[in-house]
Order: sequence, then structure tokens, then C-alpha cells
Amino acid sequence: MNREILLKSRPVGKPTTANFEIVNSEPISLNNGELLLKARYISVDPYMRGRMSDAKSYVEPYQVGKPIEGGIVAEVVESRSPQFSPGDSVFGMLQWKLVQAVSAEKVTKLNKETAPLSYYLGILGMPGLTAYFGLLDIGKPKEGETVVVSGAAGAVGMVVGQIAKLKGCRVVGIAGSDAKVNYLLNELQFDAVINYKTITNLDAAIASACPSGIDVYFDNVGGIISDAVVAQINKGARIIICGQISLYNETTQPMGPRIQPTILKRSALMQGFIVSNYTERFPEGFKKLATWITEGKMKYTQTTLNGFDRLPEAFIGLFEGNNTGKLIVEMQ
Amino acid sequence: MNREILLKSRPVGKPTTANFEIVNSEPISLNNGELLLKARYISVDPYMRGRMSDAKSYVEPYQVGKPIEGGIVAEVVESRSPQFSPGDSVFGMLQWKLVQAVSAEKVTKLNKETAPLSYYLGILGMPGLTAYFGLLDIGKPKEGETVVVSGAAGAVGMVVGQIAKLKGCRVVGIAGSDAKVNYLLNELQFDAVINYKTITNLDAAIASACPSGIDVYFDNVGGIISDAVVAQINKGARIIICGQISLYNETTQPMGPRIQPTILKRSALMQGFIVSNYTERFPEGFKKLATWITEGKMKYTQTTLNGFDRLPEAFIGLFEGNNTGKLIVEMQ
Repeated sequence: MNREILLKSRPVGKPTTANFEIVNSEPISLNNGELLLKARYISVDPYMRGRMSDAKSYVEPYQVGKPIEGGIVAEVVESRSPQFSPGDSVFGMLQWKLVQAVSAEKVTKLNKETAPLSYYLGILGMPGLTAYFGLLDIGKPKEGETVVVSGAAGAVGMVVGQIAKLKGCRVVGIAGSDAKVNYLLNELQFDAVINYKTITNLDAAIASACPSGIDVYFDNVGGIISDAVVAQINKGARIIICGQISLYNETTQPMGPRIQPTILKRSALMQGFIVSNYTERFPEGFKKLATWITEGKMKYTQTTLNGFDRLPEAFIGLFEGNNTGKLIVEMQ
Repeated sequence: MNREILLKSRPVGKPTTANFEIVNSEPISLNNGELLLKARYISVDPYMRGRMSDAKSYVEPYQVGKPIEGGIVAEVVESRSPQFSPGDSVFGMLQWKLVQAVSAEKVTKLNKETAPLSYYLGILGMPGLTAYFGLLDIGKPKEGETVVVSGAAGAVGMVVGQIAKLKGCRVVGIAGSDAKVNYLLNELQFDAVINYKTITNLDAAIASACPSGIDVYFDNVGGIISDAVVAQINKGARIIICGQISLYNETTQPMGPRIQPTILKRSALMQGFIVSNYTERFPEGFKKLATWITEGKMKYTQTTLNGFDRLPEAFIGLFEGNNTGKLIVEMQ
């Protein structure tokens, strides 16, 4: 018996387990050119919240009553394609199913020698490439500049901070627990980290952590944290809009201070992006990240939940900030 | 007897004539290397509102009790510099005085053959260069794209629209009177122009004027007009933050819809700038604009008030949208 997870209803506000349905489904038959895949690691990512709504965005919405889709590392169980053999590990944007049949073109073969397979959902996957291209292509950090990253202990943020350190920047993280702060300071050597949940004066904390102002802001969260950061940017600052997780569950138009006057006065740049804008340059980014990992210049951590049925819980947890590093679900 | 205009007090909200003081002052003596200048045309520009406040911005604040400074076209009355002769016309960032002595290094000699002297305060001066570099360097309009410009009948906006037309774009203006709308449509050949003061549904008007969405938005005004435009940008749009005149007189932090989610979803770029960022490229911009004018590819209009004492009134009028094209004060 197979098992899959459907979008039962579109969340209004914060998602709950009631928005998901876990169902048993029929065995699968395989056509020529297809692979039978058994999921091994399944990714949960904040951007998926957008696909659960029925709004125009950069990826099309999930359909109610159909399986959720996302990044999955799977094992080839049976192959009707000459390019793959049973036992191969692959990555693809696949359905939340324990077992599924897909066209061989939809997946990429993974090299187990480069790194543990789960890394392909994180530092060697979409989050790592997101950090790489967003920071370097939009942020263009220069040696000695100050880089602030919000969601600093998340899958993207901790890669951003480490790349910025490799580029010789002062790196300041904003995160939401003392454990995260300690990890970023002690393991990843961030120069300063602010716990936004316990700090009494965020403006003063940012000013103290950024004595030379802020040259690059990598924004994963949006909202009032970003208001406080943007208020302290330097002339010529670059603001990378990568995520706005603090706003994804809003049910009304979020309001805030208008930022255009600051963008104007500081001759600043703000740019949004999605990693797929850089598809043609993925090999470059992947190679760089893999090299930094194998040379020991970059560390990686992830939070793992065990069991397919925990996917909804894992996804919801993204909005509670429970995870340090990439959050994945491992099949049992 | 000389005459000058001082900043009497910093405006709170919209400036009034009470913020200015017109005084008679002493005759002037000239030192070596200096020029005695008689003002001919004096510029009033929205950015000057920022200098009247005591806030950190891209140029330092005016001092209370001291003369206002701004762009002036003047005639050399007496010269103690070998580079200038009496009768020469010059441009400089000078004080609001009928007659003043300045170091010869502070001014640029103007060519009366290229264009009427007052153009050096407009299309061949700071506003023209602002339009040129903002649109082309940040906006990068491509043939067939849709360019929206707010404050379209202002000194910068009407140059932006004409350059965009020369680049083969669909050009949509937003302006505040039927006379301006008619001028932009009939004289400058804009493809569509919206009168934001009389339109009942701005969103629908923008959608109708921009059937293929918006690729470039040149923002001179900010506030709710810009909210409506930004909501309809295309993927990969560029937003040039040149001015925010609708907000300059606010006395509290202006609030509005958060734009980062739109910037993110559309992979859009927003960049603020001040024309002095491009100082090294002024000769390029000046040459292009002068060529377009002399070849008849670009039209120019201005609104002129006569008499030094009308400078405060002229400046205040900028915030009432009275002027079509560049607003200048001509000495009598």
C-alpha cells in the first residue's frame, strides 16, 4: 500500500494539520522512460506556503485534493530508463508520496561521494543555491562590509552568513532563540547575533552590532525586523529580498513604514528573486558550495523529523522557528 | 543694495512663506579668483524641501538664518579670474542672492548657442540628467516594454517619458491636471496619461493603460499613486526611486502597504539614486540630451515666474503641482 499527502484545503492564516490529508493509495505501474522512486528525504520550505494559496505568485498554486509537491531525495527502486539503475539516488521536485512513478527527465542523479544525500535538499540544493546567488549576484558584498542576515539560523541564512564570512565581511545574524544564537556565534563564527525574541531594543541592538552601518541586508523574514534593519542601511546598500516568512500567514494586506524614502536617501538597491532565475548558473553555484564543504570551509546542520506522516507537522513548524538549519523529514 | 532670501525657520509639514525671509544686504567686494555674479534664472526643485529639514539626507541641511542654496544661471558682472569675462553666463549651486561673489571654481561656463540659458536649469541641467541616468542606468528600458512615470509633467518626468519613447517603449504618464494630460498626450506623444486627481478608479485606469503590465516605473511621487503602480509590475520589473514628493511634507512616519512581498514575487528591482552619483558621466548625459534637443527629437517646456521675491511662492507651488515642466524664477 502506498501513502500520500494531499492539500485538503487552502490555509487561511497559519497552516494547521487540518489543511492536509494523509491517504493510502493504490500500487503503481511503470511506463517506459519512467522510474519507480521511493522517497528518502523530503524537504519542507517556507515558499510552499505561497503555493497553498490561490494567488498569483512565482510558482503555480497547489490544487486542492492533489498531492503537495516539493524537493525530494529518493532512491530508484525500478528503472525503465537506460540512464538510471535501481539503487541510484536522485533529486526532483516530486509529489509527497512514499512511492511514485516519474519520467526520468524529472530527476537528477546524485553523487553520494560529495556529501550526505540529505545535503541535496539544503546546502547543496535549493537553499544553498538561493544563498549563493542572492548574496553574491544581488548583494555583491565587498571585503570589510557589514552583512546582516535575518532568519540567520535557517537553511538559507546560515549559508549566507558563511559565504559572507568567506568574502571577508562583518556578519551579523538575527535569529529567534539562544540556541540558534550560540550556534551561529560559536560554530559558524558570526561576528554578532541578535535574538529578536528576547532583545528589548532591536534598533539599539542593530546599531551596536553594526558600528559601521549596514551595507548588505539579506532579508528572509520581512516585517518589523526588516523595518529596523533597513532604517540603518548605509549609502549604496543592497537589500536582497529572499523571503518574507513573517508575512506569509497574514490574512490582510500587511502595512508598515514606507521604505521608498530611505531607499531614495541612501541610494539603495532592493531586489527580489527566486533561485530559478539562476537555473543556467546552477552548476557554478553547486561546484562552489561543494568545494567549500569538502575543503571544510563551510559547516552544515539540519533538523530532521522521522516519518512520512510528520510532513504536515514539520511544515507548520517552519513558522514557529523550531528548526536550526534545514528542516527535513526522513522516511522510516 | 543687494537682496537675498534666508531660511527663517524649518518648515513643519508644507512650507509657507513664513519659513522664508527676504532681506536687503550690503554691497559686495571681490577677492582674487572670484567672480561677481548677477542671478538671471533661479531653480526651485522638490529635493530642496529635504534640505530645509534638520534630518540626515543625501545633502546637508540648510542653516536657519542663512541663504537658501540651489541651481542658478547667472551672468558674470566682474571677473577676477582669467577663465571668465564679464558677460559670460554660468551655472552653479549658488545662494539665493541677486548678486554674489563666488570662487570661479564653483561655476561652469554655459554655451548660449546650444540652447536658451534657462534650459541649463532643466533639460540640460540637473533634472534632465536625473531623467537620463535614472531611466537608462537603473530602468534599462527595452524596446516594446511599458514604462510608467509619475510626476510625468514635471521637470524630470517629461524628459523620462520622451527618452522612453525614443527607446521604443510604450509610455504611460500620471499627472495632476487635464492641461498636463493634454500636453503629454498631444505634444510629447505619450501613449496614455492618467489624471490621478479626477480618475475614479486608479487601479483600473493603470490596468487599462498598461495592457501588458509594467516593466519600468519611474517614481517621482511615492505614496498611494506608487502603491497602485507597483501592484501591477511585471516579473523582472525595475522601479526607479527618484522622488517622493507626496511624502516630503509628512510630519509623521508615512505608512503604507508593505512592498517587499511584491518585489519578491515579481523578482523586481527597486533602486534609489541622486544624480550626483553619476557626476563622472555628466558629459555623456549632457551630450546626448543636447543632441536630442538640437535634432528636434525632444521638446521642452517650463513654467516661469518673474521676480526674485517670488522664489518662496514658486518653491511652495511645487507641492501644489502648478507647474508644467521645469519651474524657474526669472530675475526682472
